[in-house]
Amino acid sequence: MQSSNSQKANVLVLNGPNINLLGTREPDIYGHTSLADIEADLIKLASAHAVQLIFKQSNSESELIDQVQQARGSVDHMIVNAAGYSHTSIALRDALSAVAIPFYEVHISNIYQREQFRHHSYLADIAAGTLSGFGPFGYSMALLAIIKQLKL
Amino acid sequence: MQSSNSQKANVLVLNGPNINLLGTREPDIYGHTSLADIEADLIKLASAHAVQLIFKQSNSESELIDQVQQARGSVDHMIVNAAGYSHTSIALRDALSAVAIPFYEVHISNIYQREQFRHHSYLADIAAGTLSGFGPFGYSMALLAIIKQLKL
Amino acid sequence: MQSSNSQKANVLVLNGPNINLLGTREPDIYGHTSLADIEADLIKLASAHAVQLIFKQSNSESELIDQVQQARGSVDHMIVNAAGYSHTSIALRDALSAVAIPFYEVHISNIYQREQFRHHSYLADIAAGTLSGFGPFGYSMALLAIIKQLKL
Amino acid sequence: MQSSNSQKANVLVLNGPNINLLGTREPDIYGHTSLADIEADLIKLASAHAVQLIFKQSNSESELIDQVQQARGSVDHMIVNAAGYSHTSIALRDALSAVAIPFYEVHISNIYQREQFRHHSYLADIAAGTLSGFGPFGYSMALLAIIKQLKL
Amino acid sequence: MQSSNSQKANVLVLNGPNINLLGTREPDIYGHTSLADIEADLIKLASAHAVQLIFKQSNSESELIDQVQQARGSVDHMIVNAAGYSHTSIALRDALSAVAIPFYEVHISNIYQREQFRHHSYLADIAAGTLSGFGPFGYSMALLAIIKQLKL
Amino acid sequence: MQSSNSQKANVLVLNGPNINLLGTREPDIYGHTSLADIEADLIKLASAHAVQLIFKQSNSESELIDQVQQARGSVDHMIVNAAGYSHTSIALRDALSAVAIPFYEVHISNIYQREQFRHHSYLADIAAGTLSGFGPFGYSMALLAIIKQLKL
Amino acid sequence: MQSSNSQKANVLVLNGPNINLLGTREPDIYGHTSLADIEADLIKLASAHAVQLIFKQSNSESELIDQVQQARGSVDHMIVNAAGYSHTSIALRDALSAVAIPFYEVHISNIYQREQFRHHSYLADIAAGTLSGFGPFGYSMALLAIIKQLKL
Amino acid sequence: MQSSNSQKANVLVLNGPNINLLGTREPDIYGHTSLADIEADLIKLASAHAVQLIFKQSNSESELIDQVQQARGSVDHMIVNAAGYSHTSIALRDALSAVAIPFYEVHISNIYQREQFRHHSYLADIAAGTLSGFGPFGYSMALLAIIKQLKL
Amino acid sequence: MQSSNSQKANVLVLNGPNINLLGTREPDIYGHTSLADIEADLIKLASAHAVQLIFKQSNSESELIDQVQQARGSVDHMIVNAAGYSHTSIALRDALSAVAIPFYEVHISNIYQREQFRHHSYLADIAAGTLSGFGPFGYSMALLAIIKQLKL
Amino acid sequence: MQSSNSQKANVLVLNGPNINLLGTREPDIYGHTSLADIEADLIKLASAHAVQLIFKQSNSESELIDQVQQARGSVDHMIVNAAGYSHTSIALRDALSAVAIPFYEVHISNIYQREQFRHHSYLADIAAGTLSGFGPFGYSMALLAIIKQLKL
Amino acid sequence: MQSSNSQKANVLVLNGPNINLLGTREPDIYGHTSLADIEADLIKLASAHAVQLIFKQSNSESELIDQVQQARGSVDHMIVNAAGYSHTSIALRDALSAVAIPFYEVHISNIYQREQFRHHSYLADIAAGTLSGFGPFGYSMALLAIIKQLKL
Amino acid sequence: MQSSNSQKANVLVLNGPNINLLGTREPDIYGHTSLADIEADLIKLASAHAVQLIFKQSNSESELIDQVQQARGSVDHMIVNAAGYSHTSIALRDALSAVAIPFYEVHISNIYQREQFRHHSYLADIAAGTLSGFGPFGYSMALLAIIKQLKL
Repeated sequence: MQSSNSQKANVLVLNGPNINLLGTREPDIYGHTSLADIEADLIKLASAHAVQLIFKQSNSESELIDQVQQARGSVDHMIVNAAGYSHTSIALRDALSAVAIPFYEVHISNIYQREQFRHHSYLADIAAGTLSGFGPFGYSMALLAIIKQLKL
Repeated sequence: MQSSNSQKANVLVLNGPNINLLGTREPDIYGHTSLADIEADLIKLASAHAVQLIFKQSNSESELIDQVQQARGSVDHMIVNAAGYSHTSIALRDALSAVAIPFYEVHISNIYQREQFRHHSYLADIAAGTLSGFGPFGYSMALLAIIKQLKL
Repeated sequence: MQSSNSQKANVLVLNGPNINLLGTREPDIYGHTSLADIEADLIKLASAHAVQLIFKQSNSESELIDQVQQARGSVDHMIVNAAGYSHTSIALRDALSAVAIPFYEVHISNIYQREQFRHHSYLADIAAGTLSGFGPFGYSMALLAIIKQLKL
Repeated sequence: MQSSNSQKANVLVLNGPNINLLGTREPDIYGHTSLADIEADLIKLASAHAVQLIFKQSNSESELIDQVQQARGSVDHMIVNAAGYSHTSIALRDALSAVAIPFYEVHISNIYQREQFRHHSYLADIAAGTLSGFGPFGYSMALLAIIKQLKL
Repeated sequence: MQSSNSQKANVLVLNGPNINLLGTREPDIYGHTSLADIEADLIKLASAHAVQLIFKQSNSESELIDQVQQARGSVDHMIVNAAGYSHTSIALRDALSAVAIPFYEVHISNIYQREQFRHHSYLADIAAGTLSGFGPFGYSMALLAIIKQLKL
Repeated sequence: MQSSNSQKANVLVLNGPNINLLGTREPDIYGHTSLADIEADLIKLASAHAVQLIFKQSNSESELIDQVQQARGSVDHMIVNAAGYSHTSIALRDALSAVAIPFYEVHISNIYQREQFRHHSYLADIAAGTLSGFGPFGYSMALLAIIKQLKL
Repeated sequence: MQSSNSQKANVLVLNGPNINLLGTREPDIYGHTSLADIEADLIKLASAHAVQLIFKQSNSESELIDQVQQARGSVDHMIVNAAGYSHTSIALRDALSAVAIPFYEVHISNIYQREQFRHHSYLADIAAGTLSGFGPFGYSMALLAIIKQLKL
Repeated sequence: MQSSNSQKANVLVLNGPNINLLGTREPDIYGHTSLADIEADLIKLASAHAVQLIFKQSNSESELIDQVQQARGSVDHMIVNAAGYSHTSIALRDALSAVAIPFYEVHISNIYQREQFRHHSYLADIAAGTLSGFGPFGYSMALLAIIKQLKL
Repeated sequence: MQSSNSQKANVLVLNGPNINLLGTREPDIYGHTSLADIEADLIKLASAHAVQLIFKQSNSESELIDQVQQARGSVDHMIVNAAGYSHTSIALRDALSAVAIPFYEVHISNIYQREQFRHHSYLADIAAGTLSGFGPFGYSMALLAIIKQLKL
Repeated sequence: MQSSNSQKANVLVLNGPNINLLGTREPDIYGHTSLADIEADLIKLASAHAVQLIFKQSNSESELIDQVQQARGSVDHMIVNAAGYSHTSIALRDALSAVAIPFYEVHISNIYQREQFRHHSYLADIAAGTLSGFGPFGYSMALLAIIKQLKL
Repeated sequence: MQSSNSQKANVLVLNGPNINLLGTREPDIYGHTSLADIEADLIKLASAHAVQLIFKQSNSESELIDQVQQARGSVDHMIVNAAGYSHTSIALRDALSAVAIPFYEVHISNIYQREQFRHHSYLADIAAGTLSGFGPFGYSMALLAIIKQLKL
Repeated sequence: MQSSNSQKANVLVLNGPNINLLGTREPDIYGHTSLADIEADLIKLASAHAVQLIFKQSNSESELIDQVQQARGSVDHMIVNAAGYSHTSIALRDALSAVAIPFYEVHISNIYQREQFRHHSYLADIAAGTLSGFGPFGYSMALLAIIKQLKL
């Protein structure tokens, strides 16, 4: 599934709706770290390993689907925080199933401390792994898991 | 939450999918008034008060989310008829929570006389108020509530 | 349904259990406005239009039913806040169906921000329209809708 | 509903998210036929009858809604495979109800052999008919039903 | 349970909320027969047998409970149409259980052709028998069953 | 639906599975009266009116369906006790809907005092009326309702 | 919440529907003690402490609500056995919430040994405490808890 | 599963309860075409291909099971409209699973526009494909799918 | 319940739909043993004890009911594998309750490893005992239990 | 059940998991009273009556079961606060049923004001009585009930 | 899974909570046979075959888990009556899955005649077979099945 | 919550039932890494930071509770894999709430790809964060999150 003879593994970090507001949106739930801060942390981590990062954020379900589809052939692993679409989008799930690129699901807040409708994710059972509640560091944890798994 | 020293309050009237068909779509449910008619009525009402109206309609969930996000800083209150997305969009709910602009939820038809799946709205519990079944006049009622509340 | 050749339309404002405590009961939910305040506001509004108001409040389910039954023939429209009976009284629903006088349902607080058992109303689907969360002004909004509809 | 004196009936074939991957996506579920193959088969069938085909595929819920809205006045019948949106999109359902063009719902795989959440479609009860599990030939079957019904 | 050496059996016919409107209320559901008509029919039937009828109708749950309580010692059998309270009143059920006078439950309309919430009655499982959908004649049928059972 | 100028109305009394055991089967639930006893009572009642009775009992769902189908054209009204099939047979329901002969549903025992699965009947909402718990006399009550309705 | 400088605490003992039948109603469930017996026991207990008792029983939901409303300002604590209304009355719950007088909920029988619909009480989560199954002595227990809490 | 060297494929068309009434039964749901009409259409279609048709209809669940069992060894494909048994018969499902002859499920009316209990079929997930709402032409569609699949 | 002075106990082994296919039907679920094999094993076991076996298999619900009814008076115990009817037939349950002959329920496969709808049996709670998953030997186990119980 | 001629009644006070932390654990829910404080209060109360107290606390489900089993023969009544096991332990329920020693169930906090999963107790319906929300005094109340009942 | 060349098969008979009370506990449900009686019967049966029995009973979930874990390598088959833990212990289920020793599940009473919460077992779908309601003889039946299967 | 002036943070790694089998138990679900391997990896990671690790594994719910209780005062953070008890133990949840030591929940396998009953954890909403499906590396990820959070 990952390009065997590449020097670097390509990892797509895909963020869904309202993640662009991070750091300004409901800081008691999501904290004060912005998406740019998170990306900076991930780049720092990736630079120490053979990992090439691609960042995408969109409020649009179809753009997320398009990103997933375009990842085929070039991306080795994904970190996906689909935010609100995690709980409603069968179409995004289908795209992730279709391209069959292994991915980890990340939620910044602990979704089990929130509304009942956030407790179910259409992505969780097709993800390789899922984590929730570790704050922005959750992205780094997922990247570490990829690095570990790909032995990069 | 509202701009304290502005002469006028800015009110965003946000309409969701298929509202652009109003007046032609299933008139026994939605009546013969078009969206332009509604906007004209609202403008007339606003002009008698210190209210500046902004109108947006989109069939796209992400465009609605974008509109809500962009309203931060410039919009004081919103009137939202998310139509079909009311019942399915957690992402739109999240955008409305994130910007924390008070809004009223409007449904033209009485959603409780229709299919069971229309009885639940993901927006109702984060709205300041919600109304349904008052026809096109519901928009004016919501605007009157804003005028009343803002003492404009 | 409304008396065609009368000078004034008769509107019954019917309030259910515990609404008599308004202004003193749980002010963080219901605010500080009393029922008398609400009635005064409505009278002011009605006086500018051809509307005659009748006010009734009762803690008794059967008295509410009796009021509804007696309204036949003399009342053109109703504004109904059945409070706790909204969620439990099929008998009141039946009375409202039986007399077939159009009515609007009003809830002062946003019932969707409260306990699950308040999210369902036995009156909502037989009301012409329903509103919730607009505070005491909700009554005025409903009266404005009647004035608008009856072109008074 | 269909143009009575036209030489040809216009049939819109509308495909939803991830159908563009057909033939490469999970072939054990969806087979090896591509969307282009399906369209070629349909064109062959249409050419023998007075049918003009229009093909649209989109991963975007709102583009699908836009397509449906634009079909009013020019399209006589539709074949709709809304894929993942079948199970989640009330907005698309509303668009289809609004334009009131008769349509058949097609699913390539047998949705009843798959996850529970695919067993319910928001389109099924407003479709003229629905079929599932016939593979790519399902599109031809739906077109044959249109030809039969329109006596083309 | 019935007075063994009385010349006549006492039968209480107890009607609940809105039954007083019978004949004028929603005639397509309830027909054109008034409660007085029903009582006249029952009196005619009773007069041919050793049956003394007592008629009570109330819109009040507590008055119905009071009637049931007062029936102890003097009433041998009851015919009960609790209307809307059938589906919501545990208190009325408790009164009926407490006095332990056998009763038949009557519904004029077929409650299974109506809303889901009318399909359950809190009285049905403590009634000796229950009937629904026979129109006003249902009362006569229940009285005939009493006559039959008491061999009057 | 009923033959307007016939001398006699034909009434089919249709009994389902295990009713042939009546009088011997679980007498604490069903009593000691046999099916023959019931038929004798009905014949006595019919003989005083212009009613011709036809009796059928079967343990077979399809024989009951066949009987219903064959009743078209010759039978004016039916009394149906489908016993166990009441709760499970959509096919029998369909037959009764198809022939559109008005029928009353009879249950000897009070089904609401028994297992939960007996509380729902697939026949109740298409029956003209339904009764339960009146014992064998329930058949006579249903026949009296037919006599009353047909003014025989 | 309790009158700080009074010599005696006022305790309202509020009993709901059918409790007036106590001692005669279904003694295998409720025992042979009458309401008067219970009141006598409570008076004996109160006389040994600085407690003034007020007794109310009503079969009427609205009278119970009225009693609760009138208790404001004069009553320090309540003992409430709402009987059948415990399971159905949101209006009574609202009255109890509104006056905010601490109360204990008492059920004579063990409601968890009875029908499923008695297992839920609309009062339990707003009561200070709730007890069930201790028979008539449950009232004394609740009074002892008040005496203990108020250090009377 | 199909006889590889036979000149003709044998296709069993199996119809369940009340399908024999087709054309006369509830024509607003099922149309005016009779079962004989459908069979005539299918014969015409089959005659143009190497298909031998066998027609069976029964109101009896066990006869349908027997037919399915006897089809082993001689039948290559089935078209099954089990009507009311679709929703209730696990026994018929088991027979179809046991013989392992591929079959298509056909419903004349759109079962998703009808009662909730018709939305689930015990046959759908073991059928190769399922269609509903195409009227009598649905049978021809299923036969065309067989012809297509068997390349006859 | 069993004939006290008979030399032999009569045991009816009743098998339901599709059991006649045993050995050939889905052998990975049901194994390769035929019904004849099972009967041979049972006869061998019975011959060593004072047991007379009667074997019945039918695909027809009503024939199974008839067999159960006819067993009254002559049969002492039953072994019942109602197969698909276990999960759907209230009529068969009623027959078994009516005749009151003790019976054991046998399922060859482990029904808890299969579809959810096989986990509930309408016969389990009226059976003396129930077993599932022991393969064909389950019948012998049930017979051994009868022999043990009857001390034959 | 209790030793009739003993001088003293033996009462086992059985506390479940985490009750040992009382006074230090979440004091806003459970208060500041320790288990030792509670035991001291109970001893004081018991010493005034013919009651011998035995105290047991364990975090282990099986130790609680063992305690209950060992109580047979020597213990006359129990006060049980099974804490978290109340909601999950059928095994503890079975032990309590098996020994058949009457017991009262005590919860310190009001379980109906807490998470939904605490609203059901596996012990409530087999307890003689149950109380919740009276704080540490609940134990004394239960002991008073025992003293009252045993007339000690 | 079983030791192929051993002289004897080792069978672990594992009993859960409260089974140690057998014979004295609720004899109307569980009978008068003690666990020792059952073990004696099993030893007698085993002695006639190449079976070595190991008996364990514990009220502790973790001891049962430990026993199951220790059985790996030495035990060939298990008979498990987990009693109350059958319905609540995922941990015990996991232990049984982990060691992968085939086992039969035994319940002495018919769990389907008891409370709803006993109808589901976490062990049933991973057991080779399950039986319930055969009394103490159920253990012998399970051992006979092992003997049969292992051809001992 | 953590000891402010200690040189090292104490982290308790708590593992529940059957985790001791890791590496040998169902390797297709849980992999081949043993618990000792995991501990070795964690020690390596801890040694590079100011972290002192304490390891506990138990099959016993009460031992886990005891461990959690004893951690108060000495442990700064916990990593908890409660395995099967995650889904059933309210008592363990209560212990974790009581000691109020922040903890992360770890599941080796992806619990959302497994049985429905594993999708809910009683610990998830009181954990600081939760992760599932990352295999043995999940423990290291949780430890990294603690190191990150405590800035060790």
